[in-house]
Amino acid sequence: MLSNHFQNGIETARLAWSRLPSSEDAEVHDGADFGSTSGNGVESLDYEIIENYAYREEQAQRGKLLSGYYVVMKWFIALLIGIGTGLAAIVINIAVENFAGWKFSATFSIIQTSYLAGFVVYILFNLVLVFSSVFIITQFAPAAAGSGIPEIKGYLNGVDTHGILLFRTLIGKILGSIGSVGGGLALGKEGPLVHTGACIASLLGQGGSTKYHLRARWLQVFRSDRDHRDLVTCGCAAGVAAAFRAPVGGVLFALEEVTSWWRSQLMWRVFFTSAIVAVIVRTAMAWCGSGKCGHFGSGGFIIWDVSGGQEDYSFEELLPMAFIGVIGGLLGALFNQLTLYITRWRRQYLHKKGNRVKIIEVCLISLITSIISFGLPLLRKCSPCPESEANSGIECPRPPGMYGNYVRFYCAKDNEYNDLATIFFNTQDDAIRNLFSAKTFHEYSAQGLLTFLVMFYTLAVVTFGTAVPAGQFVPGIMIGSTYGRLVGMFVVNFYKKLNIDEGTYALLGAASFLGGSMRMTVSLCVIMVEITNNLKLLPLIMLVLLISKAVGDAFNEGLYEMQARLRGIPLLESRPKYHMRKMTAKEACRNQKVVYFLRVVKVADVVSVLRSSKHNGFPVVDCPGNGETLVIGLILRSHLLVLLQSKVDFQHSSLPCNINGESVPVRCDFSEFVKPVSSKGMSVDKIYLSPDDLEMYIDLAPFLNPSPYIVPEDMSLTKVYNLFRQLGLRHIFVVPRPSCVIGLITRKNLIIEENEDPATVELHSTGVRPCWHDRRVLGRDPDAEDPLLSGLLVQD
Amino acid sequence: MLSNHFQNGIETARLAWSRLPSSEDAEVHDGADFGSTSGNGVESLDYEIIENYAYREEQAQRGKLLSGYYVVMKWFIALLIGIGTGLAAIVINIAVENFAGWKFSATFSIIQTSYLAGFVVYILFNLVLVFSSVFIITQFAPAAAGSGIPEIKGYLNGVDTHGILLFRTLIGKILGSIGSVGGGLALGKEGPLVHTGACIASLLGQGGSTKYHLRARWLQVFRSDRDHRDLVTCGCAAGVAAAFRAPVGGVLFALEEVTSWWRSQLMWRVFFTSAIVAVIVRTAMAWCGSGKCGHFGSGGFIIWDVSGGQEDYSFEELLPMAFIGVIGGLLGALFNQLTLYITRWRRQYLHKKGNRVKIIEVCLISLITSIISFGLPLLRKCSPCPESEANSGIECPRPPGMYGNYVRFYCAKDNEYNDLATIFFNTQDDAIRNLFSAKTFHEYSAQGLLTFLVMFYTLAVVTFGTAVPAGQFVPGIMIGSTYGRLVGMFVVNFYKKLNIDEGTYALLGAASFLGGSMRMTVSLCVIMVEITNNLKLLPLIMLVLLISKAVGDAFNEGLYEMQARLRGIPLLESRPKYHMRKMTAKEACRNQKVVYFLRVVKVADVVSVLRSSKHNGFPVVDCPGNGETLVIGLILRSHLLVLLQSKVDFQHSSLPCNINGESVPVRCDFSEFVKPVSSKGMSVDKIYLSPDDLEMYIDLAPFLNPSPYIVPEDMSLTKVYNLFRQLGLRHIFVVPRPSCVIGLITRKNLIIEENEDPATVELHSTGVRPCWHDRRVLGRDPDAEDPLLSGLLVQD
Repeated sequence: MLSNHFQNGIETARLAWSRLPSSEDAEVHDGADFGSTSGNGVESLDYEIIENYAYREEQAQRGKLLSGYYVVMKWFIALLIGIGTGLAAIVINIAVENFAGWKFSATFSIIQTSYLAGFVVYILFNLVLVFSSVFIITQFAPAAAGSGIPEIKGYLNGVDTHGILLFRTLIGKILGSIGSVGGGLALGKEGPLVHTGACIASLLGQGGSTKYHLRARWLQVFRSDRDHRDLVTCGCAAGVAAAFRAPVGGVLFALEEVTSWWRSQLMWRVFFTSAIVAVIVRTAMAWCGSGKCGHFGSGGFIIWDVSGGQEDYSFEELLPMAFIGVIGGLLGALFNQLTLYITRWRRQYLHKKGNRVKIIEVCLISLITSIISFGLPLLRKCSPCPESEANSGIECPRPPGMYGNYVRFYCAKDNEYNDLATIFFNTQDDAIRNLFSAKTFHEYSAQGLLTFLVMFYTLAVVTFGTAVPAGQFVPGIMIGSTYGRLVGMFVVNFYKKLNIDEGTYALLGAASFLGGSMRMTVSLCVIMVEITNNLKLLPLIMLVLLISKAVGDAFNEGLYEMQARLRGIPLLESRPKYHMRKMTAKEACRNQKVVYFLRVVKVADVVSVLRSSKHNGFPVVDCPGNGETLVIGLILRSHLLVLLQSKVDFQHSSLPCNINGESVPVRCDFSEFVKPVSSKGMSVDKIYLSPDDLEMYIDLAPFLNPSPYIVPEDMSLTKVYNLFRQLGLRHIFVVPRPSCVIGLITRKNLIIEENEDPATVELHSTGVRPCWHDRRVLGRDPDAEDPLLSGLLVQD
Repeated sequence: MLSNHFQNGIETARLAWSRLPSSEDAEVHDGADFGSTSGNGVESLDYEIIENYAYREEQAQRGKLLSGYYVVMKWFIALLIGIGTGLAAIVINIAVENFAGWKFSATFSIIQTSYLAGFVVYILFNLVLVFSSVFIITQFAPAAAGSGIPEIKGYLNGVDTHGILLFRTLIGKILGSIGSVGGGLALGKEGPLVHTGACIASLLGQGGSTKYHLRARWLQVFRSDRDHRDLVTCGCAAGVAAAFRAPVGGVLFALEEVTSWWRSQLMWRVFFTSAIVAVIVRTAMAWCGSGKCGHFGSGGFIIWDVSGGQEDYSFEELLPMAFIGVIGGLLGALFNQLTLYITRWRRQYLHKKGNRVKIIEVCLISLITSIISFGLPLLRKCSPCPESEANSGIECPRPPGMYGNYVRFYCAKDNEYNDLATIFFNTQDDAIRNLFSAKTFHEYSAQGLLTFLVMFYTLAVVTFGTAVPAGQFVPGIMIGSTYGRLVGMFVVNFYKKLNIDEGTYALLGAASFLGGSMRMTVSLCVIMVEITNNLKLLPLIMLVLLISKAVGDAFNEGLYEMQARLRGIPLLESRPKYHMRKMTAKEACRNQKVVYFLRVVKVADVVSVLRSSKHNGFPVVDCPGNGETLVIGLILRSHLLVLLQSKVDFQHSSLPCNINGESVPVRCDFSEFVKPVSSKGMSVDKIYLSPDDLEMYIDLAPFLNPSPYIVPEDMSLTKVYNLFRQLGLRHIFVVPRPSCVIGLITRKNLIIEENEDPATVELHSTGVRPCWHDRRVLGRDPDAEDPLLSGLLVQD
């Protein structure tokens, strides 16, 4: 126990780690990112590198100028992210609506003559679209499968999953979404749009894609990890804003769901990005409104205006509404659990067999979906149209080729409609619009809705986790609005006199299912209000969300957290675990082997440590000569690899260069330390070093982070956790209790005016000067003979 | 320099401190709050006291049960806060609307016979209301003056201002608001409602008021500082939700504007509180809708429905809208600056002369306001009514005794109206409704609006800072909508063919002024959307806010920050200052005298240190016997005072009791350490100690916080600042560089499953065990003879 910090093995850490399922997917670069150890502690690249000795002076001169350019670029990139994400959303929407439009118009025109031929055309159309999607994903951009939100969440929490922010992932996501959504699968395009926004942001932030030679050097001002995370946060918000036309919802989604570390300065920039997206999307829709975008009419962007419906509620209705919340919580939690099992099974057995199995799987699901969505309405008896009301403006059956309620499908008479076809044989956006529609009492039969609910729920569970881009918002809204409308029908029949609209209940059902599955609160509430464009339902949506989230939380975690865990992305939750209260920092890293580097270290030793250890950060110690050692900082594995590869900083002498005096002759280009966001990083095995190189030395002092965060060994692990989580750290040094306190920092010390004698401040050396040297001096120092203190200290 | 930690004087800290203007107002209890040093590191009271040695064991047993009760109480109190704040808002609104209603109906009926008599009645009515308000505030609740938001912001940032959360402040705020708003001053009731919500939350959290013997013991589960802050955050959100009927806006306001440390768990509870408020307010309004609340009709709660107006915009309009943003930024920044000067002057000269001057001042302002609002419309020539449109539903002139546009005041003919009276001689809510109103082109003349703008702006500037509760939202909306409507009139005349509504421009103007003055973004945007109940204007509001905030930021800080600074509340901004990058932690606390306590300390020494030093936290050192000292924790001044007062833990021996063995015989009741939220705290001079007592000893070990946060001496001050700000700390120890690293904590160490061999964990002692003891053992430890490491370490 006593010597455990020099003992062998990082078994404990490995053990805890290996318990996470399939942890091979996500690479936790816990120190591989440049600047990661400093987390929030720094402002940007400059303030990051300033941590290195050699850069301090250089920065002092050019800091101000660069920081102006940096601020301008920050906003310019935010603008570009907004424009880019808005355009991507428009491209996806126009493409999906047109493919779906061609499909349905072709099918409807063919079924006038033969239902079988129409069926075949419908199936083939879907199959081709879905195949193209899954082919692109499996062959070209495997990281683009799924919704992408768990991975982005992980990235913003500090875990890099390989390839999620590449250019090819962006392209794959856009094309794949068009195929899979256009192909009528039970999935949505909103989650992928969030991922798309994040990709655009990341690529803009690193100035383009290196691999495809699309790099603009003037864009490359954002080199620190934190800058990239900020940009990706903007991208997420832009994605939500574009997907739902919900700019405020986007900001809140980024705040509540995806980011782990939030600063109020960032909110402002995220807000700006969202506003840009809103303007872009609105402009494009106005342009398309004049019929220039083919089948893209008012559809596509999900805005389900429910303004015609119920705007008030009576107290009797609160009970059925609460019931909707409970159902939402139960079905949502069940959805999460089922998808977890299926995804785990799929990953363990199915997807290990290669891409061909993935393609066949998706094509099979597409076939089944097509058969169900075409076949089930065929089995359903048509209903006669309701007595038309003059002012409702809803025609029954709807005119051919239009969007709307009361779809005539396989009906004998002219004034009949097929209620199952109205929601099943339709794009999902139109289906939701029909489910939410006000003033359409008794349009759907309970039997039809129940059939749809069961079938669609099953399809959504099965489709989730296949190798296509897949969002869960629209399927969730479909499922929720179906049972919501069912409850609404019951309420209409039960409370006959009240002003109740089934569409309102459908909306509440949608909110409840999303709340029960994704467990978002404020952001979901705002998104629901923004997509339905009706503020008056806000208290009801809040109520339903509160209940459904509470019910869901009783069973399991949210969808994204579960999926992230399944993918081996170890998210740090915002709340430390209960048992951590009883542990100390030392216990958390017990049995851990701490591998030190000396300040001036032999190249051969560096190589052997990097080969034998998987750690990403190493403490560096110095021996000032009196037998004491002194921790002078933290060096990252990635920086060591850069040093080994460049070789320019190797030296023959094993003596350190003077730090406190003149500047160190650093020959390495600091910009090489900047890691591309989505690279796999270097490996020590790929670096060739000659035997002569191995005999040389490196002085690590200029390259280390001289002040990593430290905690005393017996600090409660809860406190350590909060420190780690709140500041977004990657490494904390656990150190012995200090022997003296040099000063206490309180609020007063931190509120210093800028003009407070900077000359004095500059005079003090910032070098390494241990306290016990001071204390030895202190013995001879007459100033220290404070009578009060000596009275206290001599006592012993 | 070398021995500065034992040197005399905290001059530097004092110096920085004394530069803040009038710093006597706010007491910065930087360590006086129980549990404050641990900040976010703990979960609640239990997890706070667990930091003390003596409580660790006790907590292990009863932790789980208590924590269940604690969670239930948390939500129950949130419910109560929602109900309480909702009811307070209803009381204020009904009272204000009724007083104003009586006033205007009396005046209107008297001016049928004599304008002079009406004038006198109007002035007297206002004077009586305003006098009652200022009398209550000055005599009974001085802390209730002003908006209260800067103080609440300071409280949540960690600075307690005396008296802001007392019961009498709550009562004073409610009654004072009724008087000052009903009395027609140029101020609003929304800021005071936020303060009211915070007071209600705080009082509920501490189980009632001690002074008025209204304490319920079962409510007193929230004893830690952080719990109180969470409740106050809920209260703020509830206040905004009640004031504007904007539940989501309330959550965002609490998040963006008032809190400094935000946790996502809290969002959920704040959301719940806001939803409760929304339900309560809606219920009350439905009840009042049937005429049971006198003059309280649809007015009162500010909901200015602009749904009838413009819903779309063309690109030509973006330029005038951006212009509105610029004006908003300029006028807002000017407003902040003027109010700063006037408030500073008032505090330095006027208010030092006592309460009588304050009362006279407010009464004078009331008189001037009455004269202007009655007199100016008299000077104005009436305009003929516009041709009535059948479907607009707006009568001209409005029927007597009703709310609405086109007020007939001092007009010769029957079908004339006075445009200045329409906005001036009215309650502010109705005036805003009239300014926002759609389909009322050319209702106001440019001359009338300009007159009103200048007059009202001046009145608002002068009224700000007087000794009455005063919100800035409604005056800001008034000012903004006036110039907005002016721009709108210009645009209507310029772009003749477009579908432009002046009311929309008035709304944008309101948003721009609030943005330019308060500098909120997302929350203001959501509040504006919620109070106008129109989502379609969201992108435009965003655009205007972006511009006005950017313009305003170029000149000065936001209104609340400036006022907080003026009141001597040292807010820690979210962003560290630029010059901090060049400083280290050691430099920030240079020349600081660190006063240590020994673990077992003489009572006389404690008293003399407490008398001679103003510090609120002291490091405690132990001397294990080998000449080395060891810092074992931090003791707070407030805890020392409790120990001195209770005297039960005094001992005769100067030997420590054994900590690592059996439990320490602690006789002091730990609940005494819990400080009431709004007390002034104890003073060492008020504690009587006999000469015998002074000769005794105290063992501080059971009462100290054994693991305060530490930073190495040469850490960049930026990093220290972020640590301090993000975790909400009060004290950080600056310590020398460590000599060894016991372990590295990375993400992997923190993702530990709950069931991981707790038995092993429990076995390790949590006592103080320094690292160099370990290292000495290490020399003889064969396990440590790792060939790789020895190769690295022996080299020197």
